Amino acid sequence: MISARPLRHIIIDTDPGQDDAMAILLALASPEEIEILGITAVAGNVPLALTQVNARKVCELAGKPDVKVYAGCDRPLDRTLVTAEHVHGKSGLDGPDLPDPVMPLQEAHAVDFIIDTLRAANSGTVTLCALGPLTNLALAFRKAPDIIPRVQEIVIMGGAYFEVGNVTPTAEFNIYVDPHAADIVFKSGIPLVVMPLDVTHKALVTAARNDAFRALGNPVGVAAAQMTDFFERYDREKYGSSGAPLHDPCVTAYLIAPELFTGRHINVEIETMSELTLGMTVADWWGVTGRAPNALFMGDLDADGFFALLTDRLARL
Amino acid sequence: MISARPLRHIIIDTDPGQDDAMAILLALASPEEIEILGITAVAGNVPLALTQVNARKVCELAGKPDVKVYAGCDRPLDRTLVTAEHVHGKSGLDGPDLPDPVMPLQEAHAVDFIIDTLRAANSGTVTLCALGPLTNLALAFRKAPDIIPRVQEIVIMGGAYFEVGNVTPTAEFNIYVDPHAADIVFKSGIPLVVMPLDVTHKALVTAARNDAFRALGNPVGVAAAQMTDFFERYDREKYGSSGAPLHDPCVTAYLIAPELFTGRHINVEIETMSELTLGMTVADWWGVTGRAPNALFMGDLDADGFFALLTDRLARL
Amino acid sequence: MISARPLRHIIIDTDPGQDDAMAILLALASPEEIEILGITAVAGNVPLALTQVNARKVCELAGKPDVKVYAGCDRPLDRTLVTAEHVHGKSGLDGPDLPDPVMPLQEAHAVDFIIDTLRAANSGTVTLCALGPLTNLALAFRKAPDIIPRVQEIVIMGGAYFEVGNVTPTAEFNIYVDPHAADIVFKSGIPLVVMPLDVTHKALVTAARNDAFRALGNPVGVAAAQMTDFFERYDREKYGSSGAPLHDPCVTAYLIAPELFTGRHINVEIETMSELTLGMTVADWWGVTGRAPNALFMGDLDADGFFALLTDRLARL
Amino acid sequence: MISARPLRHIIIDTDPGQDDAMAILLALASPEEIEILGITAVAGNVPLALTQVNARKVCELAGKPDVKVYAGCDRPLDRTLVTAEHVHGKSGLDGPDLPDPVMPLQEAHAVDFIIDTLRAANSGTVTLCALGPLTNLALAFRKAPDIIPRVQEIVIMGGAYFEVGNVTPTAEFNIYVDPHAADIVFKSGIPLVVMPLDVTHKALVTAARNDAFRALGNPVGVAAAQMTDFFERYDREKYGSSGAPLHDPCVTAYLIAPELFTGRHINVEIETMSELTLGMTVADWWGVTGRAPNALFMGDLDADGFFALLTDRLARL
Ligand SMILES: [Ca+2]
Ligand SMILES: [Ca+2]
Ligand SMILES: [Ca+2]
Ligand SMILES: [Ca+2]
Repeated sequence: MISARPLRHIIIDTDPGQDDAMAILLALASPEEIEILGITAVAGNVPLALTQVNARKVCELAGKPDVKVYAGCDRPLDRTLVTAEHVHGKSGLDGPDLPDPVMPLQEAHAVDFIIDTLRAANSGTVTLCALGPLTNLALAFRKAPDIIPRVQEIVIMGGAYFEVGNVTPTAEFNIYVDPHAADIVFKSGIPLVVMPLDVTHKALVTAARNDAFRALGNPVGVAAAQMTDFFERYDREKYGSSGAPLHDPCVTAYLIAPELFTGRHINVEIETMSELTLGMTVADWWGVTGRAPNALFMGDLDADGFFALLTDRLARL
Repeated sequence: MISARPLRHIIIDTDPGQDDAMAILLALASPEEIEILGITAVAGNVPLALTQVNARKVCELAGKPDVKVYAGCDRPLDRTLVTAEHVHGKSGLDGPDLPDPVMPLQEAHAVDFIIDTLRAANSGTVTLCALGPLTNLALAFRKAPDIIPRVQEIVIMGGAYFEVGNVTPTAEFNIYVDPHAADIVFKSGIPLVVMPLDVTHKALVTAARNDAFRALGNPVGVAAAQMTDFFERYDREKYGSSGAPLHDPCVTAYLIAPELFTGRHINVEIETMSELTLGMTVADWWGVTGRAPNALFMGDLDADGFFALLTDRLARL
Repeated sequence: MISARPLRHIIIDTDPGQDDAMAILLALASPEEIEILGITAVAGNVPLALTQVNARKVCELAGKPDVKVYAGCDRPLDRTLVTAEHVHGKSGLDGPDLPDPVMPLQEAHAVDFIIDTLRAANSGTVTLCALGPLTNLALAFRKAPDIIPRVQEIVIMGGAYFEVGNVTPTAEFNIYVDPHAADIVFKSGIPLVVMPLDVTHKALVTAARNDAFRALGNPVGVAAAQMTDFFERYDREKYGSSGAPLHDPCVTAYLIAPELFTGRHINVEIETMSELTLGMTVADWWGVTGRAPNALFMGDLDADGFFALLTDRLARL
Repeated sequence: MISARPLRHIIIDTDPGQDDAMAILLALASPEEIEILGITAVAGNVPLALTQVNARKVCELAGKPDVKVYAGCDRPLDRTLVTAEHVHGKSGLDGPDLPDPVMPLQEAHAVDFIIDTLRAANSGTVTLCALGPLTNLALAFRKAPDIIPRVQEIVIMGGAYFEVGNVTPTAEFNIYVDPHAADIVFKSGIPLVVMPLDVTHKALVTAARNDAFRALGNPVGVAAAQMTDFFERYDREKYGSSGAPLHDPCVTAYLIAPELFTGRHINVEIETMSELTLGMTVADWWGVTGRAPNALFMGDLDADGFFALLTDRLARL
C-alpha cells in the first residue's frame, strides 16, 4: 500500500490524551517513514503538568525512553484554559495503568526546542505535527519569525466543517482552547494539512477494531485497547456512535499513508471576534468567498485502511 | 398518509423565488389543511419590487387571484440588502414565462397586515410561514409586541447546522440577509419550527421528480418543472447534486404532513456579532450549551413522501 | 440674539425624563421658531407606559393640551430594554407633582404618525428631534424607506466622544439602549446634528440657574426647578458636578439658536459588534479614518446663552 | 521635591521613538532612583530592526554604552504590524543626527532576558516599564507564567479614556498595535500603573520648555530639543497643540516622582472583539461596571513639575 517516501523529520506537539498517545505510538512504530526529533507538550485535554508526564509514559510504553520530551505553555495566549477531563479522565490518559515515567523531562522550553530545531535543520525539512491547542507553535512563530519559512508543513488535528463542533456547537476542542494561536498558525503562510472532525469522526474504534488491538498480544496493543475502551465512553453517550474517534492518529497516519485521506485545498479562517462562535474553523469548502486557499482541509478517510495501518504498526512495538 | 388535522390559518411571508413559488402552490393546492389569510412579500432573493409581483404571478398561475398579497420591507433592518439573482435569475422566478399579474397588490403594508390579522384572530390560531428574510416578522413584533403571544407557531425555512451555509461558509441566505431580524424572531419565545439546509438539501428535484411534475399536464405542473429546471443549475454546478433543493416547500409540507420531518427541540442562536460568521444559526444539536430550547430544528425528511405529496397536490391545481 | 429664521416643523420623539420635559417645554414656549407637529413616545428612561403619560403631563403643564401625543415602541430592536429609574425616579418625571393627564393619547402608532406626517408634508420641511433611544425613527425608516429623503434634518441628543459614556464606560444611554436603531439612523444619509455628552455635560443647572427657574413664578418655572432639583442628585453624586446636565433641551435650543453650539462635521459610527463597547458613538473628531462625514457632532455650547434662552422662554408659558 | 525612595530595578521595554528616547534618558540620568537592568526593544513606532538600533543610540548619547539592549518581537501577537513613521520619521528617531551605535546588541532574545531577570531577582523587586506595544511582556508571561507573580509593578504608557484615541478615534497607538498582548497584561493580576493620553497630552513641550532643553548646553540637551522639535510637528498639525506630548517619559518620571501624577484605581479592559473599537482601553473611570480594579489609571500630572524634573535630570548627562 505504501510507496517509498522520503523520511519525515517531525516534532509532535501534543496534549495527551488517549488519541494523542495512539498518534505518538504510530509514529514511534514507523521509523522507516518518520523520525521524531522531539515531543513538545502543551496544556489542553488536561493541564501541562499531566500532558508532559503522559507524553513520557507513552514513550516508555513503546520502549523508546530516549525520545526527548519538552514542556511548553501551560495556558492559551489570550483565553483561560479549558480542559476536557470529562472525555479523557482525570489523568488525561485513563484506561491503562501505565507506570510513572523514569525518562527525564528535557530542561529546555518546548518553544525554544521548536525554534532551535528549525534553525538547526535544513530549511523545509522539518514537519510540525499539532495534536493539541496551537499555543506552543504560535509562541514559537512570534518569538522567532525567522523559523516560519523553514517549516516544511504543519499537520493539524483540529477544527470541523460539516461536523461543526464538539466542545461548543461550532468549535472543535483544540481550536477553541486557543483560537488566537490557531489564527496565528492559519495565517502563517506555512503549508497546512488539517484533520478536522469531519475526518476523525469517521476513524471510529469499533468493537472489532478494539479487539484487533488487544489481540496483538504486546503491551502496546493491550494499552491501546484499554485507552480506546475508556475514550469511547464519551462519544458513545453523546453521539451514539459505535466507538471512539481516533482524532490525533490521523495526523501521523497522514505522514505514512497520505493516500488514506481526501480533502480540498481551501481557505480556512478562525473565528476570534465572537463569543458565540469562538474558535470555529470557517472553511470555504464550497469556494464561495474568493479568499485564497491556505490549507488542505481533509473531508474523508479510508477507515479500514487507517485501522489496518494502525494495527499493523502497533504490532511492531 | 395524512390524518385529520385542524385547519391551519397561515400568513406566508416570502421572497419568491422558484422554491417560494412551489411552497405557495402547495399551500394553495391544500385547502383542506391550509387557509391562506394573506401573502406578504419581502426583499430577499430579488428586490421587493419583484417579489411582490412574483407572489401575485404564482397566485394567478394557481388560479387563485383572490388571495391578498401585501408588500413589506424593501431592505433588512441593519444590513445592506444582499440578493441572489445568480441562483434565481434576474426576475427571481426565471424558468416559466408567467404573465404580468392582473390581481392587485393590497394597499396595506405587510407589517400592518400581519399585526391586524393576528389581533383580529383568536389568539393561537394563526401560523406564520417564513420563506425569506425575517424582516417583516421582526418589524411586526417590534411595532406591535402584543401580537407575539398570539402567534400559534412560526415555520421557518432558514439556517443550517451540518450543512453550515450556502451564501457564506457559515450562513444560509435567509438568515444571512437579515441576521438581526432572525435574532428577534429566534428570541421571541414563539414556538418555532425550522427547516434548515440540513433538511432542504435532501429535498432534491431529481430528473424523475421533475418529469413527474411535467407529466401532470396542467399548467402548474409544467411551470413547476420549468422553475426547478432553472433553479437546479446553480446547485448542480456548486454541489454536484442531482437536482435543485426545494427549500421553501418544506415549510408548507410540514403543515400538511409533519410526519415527513424529524428533528430535535434545541436551542438555536443567531450570530450577529462577527462579520466572519454573520447570520449563522448556532444550533445546539448535541446539547452541550445548557441553553434553553427555543426551536424544533429539523434534521431529516422523507424525501419520497415529500415529493409524492407535492406532486399529488400540484395535480389538483 | 436670535435672527429671523424659517419656522421649523418638528416631531419630538422622546422618553420623558425630566430633561425631555424641559426640551418639550422650550419648544412649546417658542411658537415663532417651532411648530410641533406631534410628540412620539418611546421606551427609554422608563417604560413606554410611563413615557407617553409623561409627555402628556408636560403638554398640560404648559397649557397645551391640543398637542398630539403618540405611543411608539416599547422595546429596542434587538436588545432587552434597559431603563434609568436610578436617574429619573420611578415615574421618570420625579420632582414636581404633576396631575394625571386628561388629554388623550392618540390612537395611531408613533411610527405611522411619523411616516404619514413626512409623506403629507413637503419634502425637506419636517425635522425630527430625537430625545430618547432611536427605535421609533429606525422602525419608521425601515417600514417606509420612502420617507428617508423627505426628512429635513434629525437633531439627536445622544452619544459622546471626549465624555465617552454615562451608562457604561463607553456608551451614552440613548444610543446604548438601542444601538441597532442608532446604527440605522446614523447610516440613513439624513443630515444629522448630534448633541453628545460633550455638550450636554456643559449645560449644568447650577443653583443660580435653578433659582432663576423658580423665580419665574409661573407653574412651569416651579416645576422646572423641581425637576432639575431631583435630576441633579444623580450627577452630583457621580460626577461631583455642580448641577444636573440638561441633555435634551440642547436639541430644541439648537432649533431656536444654533449659534449657541459649535461642533465638527465628521464621521460617526455606532458600535454594534462588541458587548464591551456596545453603543459607543465612534466619532472621528480628529479626521483620522478617511470615512465620510455624516453628522454635525457638537463639542461645545454657550452655557450662559443657553440658560438665558431657556429661562426667557419658560417665562412665556 | 523628592523624598528618599527605595531604588527601583527596572527593565525598559520600548520602541524608540523620540519620546521613548526621552524616557530612557531620564532613567539613565537618575541612578539614585533607578537601576536599569536592561532595555528590550519591540516593533512599534518603527520596525524592530530600527527600534533596537535606536535604543542603543540613545544609550550612547547618554554616555552609557554598558547598558544591555535586547531585541524582542518584530510583530504583534495576532495582528499585522502597524507603524507610525508619519509621527516619528523614517528612522523613528528623526531630529538629531545620532551616530550608528558601537555598543553591541545582546544575543539573547528580549523575552528570555525578561524571564531570566525576573527569575534571578528576588520576587517583587523588578519593575517593567512598557513604552511600546506590549508584545514582549505578553510573550514572556505566556512562555514563563511563573514570572507573573514575581513582577513588582508594570508602568505602562498606553491607552486613553477622555482623550479616547490617537491612531483611531478610539485607540491609542501602543494598545492598538497589539491589543491581545495588552489584554494579556491587563488581565495578568500584576499591579499596573497606566499613563494614558489623558496624562501625556498634558505633558507638552512648549517652546519655552524646548528652549530649556537646548539651553542645557550638553549634547543630550541639544538632542532632546531636536527630537521634540521634530516630534511636535505631528501633534501641532493634528491637535493644534502648543507642542509635542512627551508620552513615554511619564513612565520613568513616575518612578522618580510619583507625586507628580494623580489618577484612579479602576478596572480597565481592552477591546479585542470589534474592528471598529479595537484596542480601546475601556476604563471604568466612573465606577459604573462593578468590575474589579486592576490598574492605577492616571488622569492628570503636574506639567511644570514634570518638565522641571526632566530638565534637571537631563542636565546631569
Ligand atoms: Ca490531542
Ligand atoms: Ca425564499
Ligand atoms: Ca431623553
Ligand atoms: Ca513608545
